[in-house]
Amino acid sequence: MSQLPDGASDLADAAALDAADPLAGFRDAFVHAEDEPDLIYLDGNSLGRLPVASVALAAEVVEAQWGRRLIRSWNEGWFELPTRIGDRLAGVVGAAPGEVALADNTSVCLYKAAVAALQARPGRTRILTDDLNFPSDVQVLRAAARAAGPDHEVVVVPSDGVHGPLDGLLAEMDDGGVALVSLSHVAYMSGWCWDLAAVTAAVHEAGALVLWDLCHSVGAVPIDLGAAEVDLAVGCTYKYVNGGPGSPAFLYVSADRPELVNPIAGWYGSDDPFAFDFDAGRAPDVSRFLTGTPPVLSTALVEPGVDLLLEAGMDRLRAKSVALTERFIALVDEHLVPRGFELRSPRDPDLRGAHVSLFHPDALAVDQALINEESVIPDFRPPDLLRFGFAPLYVRYADVDEAVARTVRVVDGGGIDRWRDAKPAVP
Amino acid sequence: MSQLPDGASDLADAAALDAADPLAGFRDAFVHAEDEPDLIYLDGNSLGRLPVASVALAAEVVEAQWGRRLIRSWNEGWFELPTRIGDRLAGVVGAAPGEVALADNTSVCLYKAAVAALQARPGRTRILTDDLNFPSDVQVLRAAARAAGPDHEVVVVPSDGVHGPLDGLLAEMDDGGVALVSLSHVAYMSGWCWDLAAVTAAVHEAGALVLWDLCHSVGAVPIDLGAAEVDLAVGCTYKYVNGGPGSPAFLYVSADRPELVNPIAGWYGSDDPFAFDFDAGRAPDVSRFLTGTPPVLSTALVEPGVDLLLEAGMDRLRAKSVALTERFIALVDEHLVPRGFELRSPRDPDLRGAHVSLFHPDALAVDQALINEESVIPDFRPPDLLRFGFAPLYVRYADVDEAVARTVRVVDGGGIDRWRDAKPAVP
Repeated sequence: MSQLPDGASDLADAAALDAADPLAGFRDAFVHAEDEPDLIYLDGNSLGRLPVASVALAAEVVEAQWGRRLIRSWNEGWFELPTRIGDRLAGVVGAAPGEVALADNTSVCLYKAAVAALQARPGRTRILTDDLNFPSDVQVLRAAARAAGPDHEVVVVPSDGVHGPLDGLLAEMDDGGVALVSLSHVAYMSGWCWDLAAVTAAVHEAGALVLWDLCHSVGAVPIDLGAAEVDLAVGCTYKYVNGGPGSPAFLYVSADRPELVNPIAGWYGSDDPFAFDFDAGRAPDVSRFLTGTPPVLSTALVEPGVDLLLEAGMDRLRAKSVALTERFIALVDEHLVPRGFELRSPRDPDLRGAHVSLFHPDALAVDQALINEESVIPDFRPPDLLRFGFAPLYVRYADVDEAVARTVRVVDGGGIDRWRDAKPAVP
Repeated sequence: MSQLPDGASDLADAAALDAADPLAGFRDAFVHAEDEPDLIYLDGNSLGRLPVASVALAAEVVEAQWGRRLIRSWNEGWFELPTRIGDRLAGVVGAAPGEVALADNTSVCLYKAAVAALQARPGRTRILTDDLNFPSDVQVLRAAARAAGPDHEVVVVPSDGVHGPLDGLLAEMDDGGVALVSLSHVAYMSGWCWDLAAVTAAVHEAGALVLWDLCHSVGAVPIDLGAAEVDLAVGCTYKYVNGGPGSPAFLYVSADRPELVNPIAGWYGSDDPFAFDFDAGRAPDVSRFLTGTPPVLSTALVEPGVDLLLEAGMDRLRAKSVALTERFIALVDEHLVPRGFELRSPRDPDLRGAHVSLFHPDALAVDQALINEESVIPDFRPPDLLRFGFAPLYVRYADVDEAVARTVRVVDGGGIDRWRDAKPAVP
């Protein structure tokens, strides 16, 4: 391991913190490639690591369930996968059984939820969001507005680029015309974390419904949708839930909102899917928001990651991720700010998720040098930001120090010049 | 193997046909479980078999691409999977590169396509379909009608339960009010196969757009979407394409219809997905109809099945499947009609896909006895139909004889009484 310059000495020793970490053992529940023993993976906020249990499960689903049992597997667990795993995931987000199901992807789930909300608030024509929200969310909210009617519009409240614009949102809610407020709980770029309960209460006070995107918070930040009386939420399962690339999204619909109707009702969300009835009714709980046949393999592999979150516990995970990001920011202040980096995430850990964004004028070159020369994987967001994600199930305190040390080495060793002409990596 | 009663002797010998079958070798491209050597799987019209190549590919995607390469795999092929495999599948359905992409499931794709079509035909308010269509399609078309506006409605033209109601459709198209005609190319229950080109021409003559559901025809029936000038089509990849349980659907949008707009536009369908721009434009070809992140594992596994179809060739596959269903119907006439079965599929092979439906008053009991006592898997469709699917890549002529022989044994051996109280299997 590299050594950080001396100034880091006022921080507790990383090795000692790792030795005392009650979650340290979870690192071994994930696959770490033998051919890259020095890899520091700080992009779990984009794609989580592969749980060891998912390797055998994938083979089981493909070879035994599909290959041997064939169509019979639909009777032997496949049909209930979206709701059964949803019920388990409900335990991660403070929902009740029957309120969470795996389905589609986040954007399609968001569309369904937004249209349902707009239809439940006739006479109100505005959807509020902010400019910290993921672009696809804003695009999809606009699509939902178009589906709801010609008078509907999406209002994007501006922020300072880092912190959620609470005052702006509250001002827009004043006039009684807002049907829906939809925000990312944790902002994909800055890591800003909304006070989910307080915002939800304010939205309800204004007579609107709330729809949270939990993509960047589920599995990293404790969430209690029930206590906050959230109406609707969506999220992905491939970041901190470690469900695999493009694994299905989840949709939460409060049991207190039976009036919400799936705008893309299909056979999988009907009350009797195997009656093959054109006029089938709708299933009673969140499963009424399902539409078509789910991707079984990608769905099944969500479960091991959910199991790990439940076993670790969200409070312990949050405590560790805060400790990791606090340590990282302290080291950034000391070692990277003098080298041209600037913090672009909230400094208060209560206002921050599990990733940290840094500005650098040559962010792309730094990113490519880190990946290709130093075996550190953050991610680059154009035009000039780097995101470092600290997934608490598998990132160590020593990884934080090492990532900063290697970033120092990139800057001091000419890595920026070597990678100045790099093309952006995706996604 | 069982022996059929003597009357079958005017048919060519099954073993000889299998020996002469130019596609016989493709059977070995699929996994056949050693613990059920006598299994006759006639439900490839619901879930196709597991290609041998998919076993290694699943491990590769999970262990190497996800586990080792992690986020970098998005740059190493994942991002293009929906369009790259779509371009290959285009070769199966007579489309051009850029006209087919894997996405979502059939129902969600159908919704997108239908809403897009309705928006492209302002002033016309009716959607035509028929009662042979899959119930989820009718439900989703109604959802699309609701999204398009309060005046829109779905008209379900009645059939005789087996044959497509062409005259009824033509009559409904007379008045210039039809925006969209959406039909299943091959009907899921009776196996009726529409003349895709002729119906498309009639729909265009009436000034409407056409949207074909190819779920039960793709991989079984030759399709030339380009020659027929089809506007829109959707289909699944888990039946005759052998893509795996719930593998993503595909969406075809004609290159001649650039005016069609994805109603659920999201980041994956934008012209610059990694610019993270709220106002991103839309991609130029079918990829503009993509919405969110695709399920990578379930998407990747579609490719081996597509490869097998391309290698076998749709004309050879069709010739064999017609031979299989013709043989089956001849044996049904001789051995099963006297035992209470009735053909509920078109007798003319030109009007039929690759599955055959039979009525029996105790169809569920027959189905369960076949599955549980005789190791034959057809499927049951309530209230009184059995479907037998003859996927030409892996069903043998001998399997046809054997399935009929075992059905005879079920009926003559009291199987119906033993399974009279069975619950329906799904799906």
